[in-house]
Amino acid sequence: MARDASRVETFSDGVFAVVLTVMAVELLQNGPARDPGRELPDALAQAWPSYLAYVITFGIAGQIWLGHHNMWRYVVRVDQVLLVFNLLLLLVVAAIPFTADLLSDNLRGSATEQRLTAALYLGTVLGESLFFNLSWWWARRHRLLHPDLDPRLARAVARRLRLRPLLYLIAFAFVFVDPILSLFLYLLLVGLSLIRRPGDLPRFAAETGGEVSGRGR
Amino acid sequence: MARDASRVETFSDGVFAVVLTVMAVELLQNGPARDPGRELPDALAQAWPSYLAYVITFGIAGQIWLGHHNMWRYVVRVDQVLLVFNLLLLLVVAAIPFTADLLSDNLRGSATEQRLTAALYLGTVLGESLFFNLSWWWARRHRLLHPDLDPRLARAVARRLRLRPLLYLIAFAFVFVDPILSLFLYLLLVGLSLIRRPGDLPRFAAETGGEVSGRGR
Amino acid sequence: MARDASRVETFSDGVFAVVLTVMAVELLQNGPARDPGRELPDALAQAWPSYLAYVITFGIAGQIWLGHHNMWRYVVRVDQVLLVFNLLLLLVVAAIPFTADLLSDNLRGSATEQRLTAALYLGTVLGESLFFNLSWWWARRHRLLHPDLDPRLARAVARRLRLRPLLYLIAFAFVFVDPILSLFLYLLLVGLSLIRRPGDLPRFAAETGGEVSGRGR
Amino acid sequence: MARDASRVETFSDGVFAVVLTVMAVELLQNGPARDPGRELPDALAQAWPSYLAYVITFGIAGQIWLGHHNMWRYVVRVDQVLLVFNLLLLLVVAAIPFTADLLSDNLRGSATEQRLTAALYLGTVLGESLFFNLSWWWARRHRLLHPDLDPRLARAVARRLRLRPLLYLIAFAFVFVDPILSLFLYLLLVGLSLIRRPGDLPRFAAETGGEVSGRGR
Repeated sequence: MARDASRVETFSDGVFAVVLTVMAVELLQNGPARDPGRELPDALAQAWPSYLAYVITFGIAGQIWLGHHNMWRYVVRVDQVLLVFNLLLLLVVAAIPFTADLLSDNLRGSATEQRLTAALYLGTVLGESLFFNLSWWWARRHRLLHPDLDPRLARAVARRLRLRPLLYLIAFAFVFVDPILSLFLYLLLVGLSLIRRPGDLPRFAAETGGEVSGRGR
Repeated sequence: MARDASRVETFSDGVFAVVLTVMAVELLQNGPARDPGRELPDALAQAWPSYLAYVITFGIAGQIWLGHHNMWRYVVRVDQVLLVFNLLLLLVVAAIPFTADLLSDNLRGSATEQRLTAALYLGTVLGESLFFNLSWWWARRHRLLHPDLDPRLARAVARRLRLRPLLYLIAFAFVFVDPILSLFLYLLLVGLSLIRRPGDLPRFAAETGGEVSGRGR
Repeated sequence: MARDASRVETFSDGVFAVVLTVMAVELLQNGPARDPGRELPDALAQAWPSYLAYVITFGIAGQIWLGHHNMWRYVVRVDQVLLVFNLLLLLVVAAIPFTADLLSDNLRGSATEQRLTAALYLGTVLGESLFFNLSWWWARRHRLLHPDLDPRLARAVARRLRLRPLLYLIAFAFVFVDPILSLFLYLLLVGLSLIRRPGDLPRFAAETGGEVSGRGR
Repeated sequence: MARDASRVETFSDGVFAVVLTVMAVELLQNGPARDPGRELPDALAQAWPSYLAYVITFGIAGQIWLGHHNMWRYVVRVDQVLLVFNLLLLLVVAAIPFTADLLSDNLRGSATEQRLTAALYLGTVLGESLFFNLSWWWARRHRLLHPDLDPRLARAVARRLRLRPLLYLIAFAFVFVDPILSLFLYLLLVGLSLIRRPGDLPRFAAETGGEVSGRGR
């Protein structure tokens, strides 16, 4: 009866899987192939904001999945509060395709449109960061993590999670300078977050390195 | 060959995941971005019933997932009847986005529209309660629960499940006074149900507390 | 490395979950709420074929899931051929919402429309039966089943699977008399198939009865 | 904490499941039943490109799932890079319904349309091959595979994966001769890839043959 965390992962993975594919469904149903009054090469070229929204959604939701995967590996028990934080995280994640689509549609719009859609997008990204931080904080405080987890690693993860909303805010401040620059800055941050950091991931690797023998499933 | 219950969870989680994200897909495909004749800030503001339907769907389906998660932790075997009850529960859950959308669209409609959509919504929520009660009753009667489960806890869960349709009925009686009041009352009930209750959840926690060591997966 | 079958279940469950919820998405996106020229009670009443298609899809796909669940409990190993049979089964399952929707839309159409849509629907149901039979036959022949499985039970399952396409054909022959009668006959058959049969399921229960202790996950 | 790979499978399966069913949703929502100005038999016949896209999507995504299933059986640990390669693979897989739909819609179009859509389709298939090759290469190099895996088998898999993009390129060169011929050639290749090869799969079977006893889950 202690296998709670695995079901949370399955359920969250379902939500992530739908979010990742929603933009592909959108491309199929309202994309260039459904644009009657245009030549195909032209219709395909005109649909670039949809491709951008597809890539943004995949990048962001994929990165959040990575973070979720890394965090939940260490969670062995769940309680009602942690489940609610996870549901709220998923509520925000599910809104990403919508805000990414708005953002990409309005990149060349008026200044009001650019700022409004960037603010909405910022909201979802900050919301996601918030519920990640709350989840980890709660899991640490209520001893829901694996007992063998090194407390220094747990603190390092917490520090890293706290840093993220800050970096996002800085990247988005550039929306007032140039929205496309701001977006590329943001994607750069996402890319950087995938790279191993000296103080962090080697310890992750060391942690799991000794347990290669079984898949533990 | 006794691992039946885990597959039921995976399958149900798939349905829950789609239900939770359906409203986000709807927002993307028929939402403000697809509203050609309007300025963006205006179009976004006008779409408030869609956001409300999104939050209601997430709230209700999320709460049902929590209940499903809590109940199925104790189920170790399944039989044909329990599987059919679970399928009927999912049939009702899958209808939630539709009725939540109708409800939010008609909150400011005529009195007929308000009552009709509230009644439909009430139907799905009561149906969900019904199949939850039937599942638990059947699982207890046919010894499908974990043998170590304290019978007092099993009874407490049954009592709590029986209470729910009653509370829902009361909240919805207010639809004849004011539909928005009724809806907020209902969401309040959902929120309250997430809070630990003195007689119940401490025992849940005690139950799992001694088994932190492995994830049992 | 012998845990192949569990991933097949997870993957199939994903397809089943989407199929079960597709009609609900369709109701949301093209249903009565999107019907502008009509009063709500009227629009809701006129949409009855959509509700019927929703219930048919859920009934059929739910029953197939039950059969899939019962069969795959006994599969311990997979090979390329069994995986291909399973993929072909899912190909047919994924077409059920489409044919169920066509069928329900044309129940009151011309005689040509009724027969055409009934024939299409029959095709998906027979196809599903075919790949079920092929999967079980292959798994038995190539020793992919659990070694403790009673060969008499394996034979009983095979007999039962062979019976199904026959019963479906008989029910659908009535489409030439009256399509609605034929549909109800078919749903009756699905309902009957859920009831325990003397020679079969008690042995299933006995099989799993002795292993209540762990969830084996 | 070494069970990483199983969650990657669950998550990827969710994406595959949505991709496989997307074309069925498309058939339901924009298919022949929604074609008002036509007789049903005619509307059904005219929709053949949608059926073709459905079958192509299922064939390709199904084959990729098979490859994913076969590869990940041997992966016991994951690291950040392997997860990113897997996400990029899923990014490409999620685009298959879109490119398959474009391809089938333009099979009878102008030469420009045929070549453009074939090139796009080729891009997704080659991209998929690329990330498969990268994943396997990385997993081998960084000792993420099961320690009992025969290095000769690992090399054989790598060789087979490297062969695939080459064969795809040859099949697609025929698009300049005749696009329909090229497509059938491609589907033939997919079909052939499902057949056991002398040097390869017997060793797979031998590998798992000795571990029938438990499902290891």
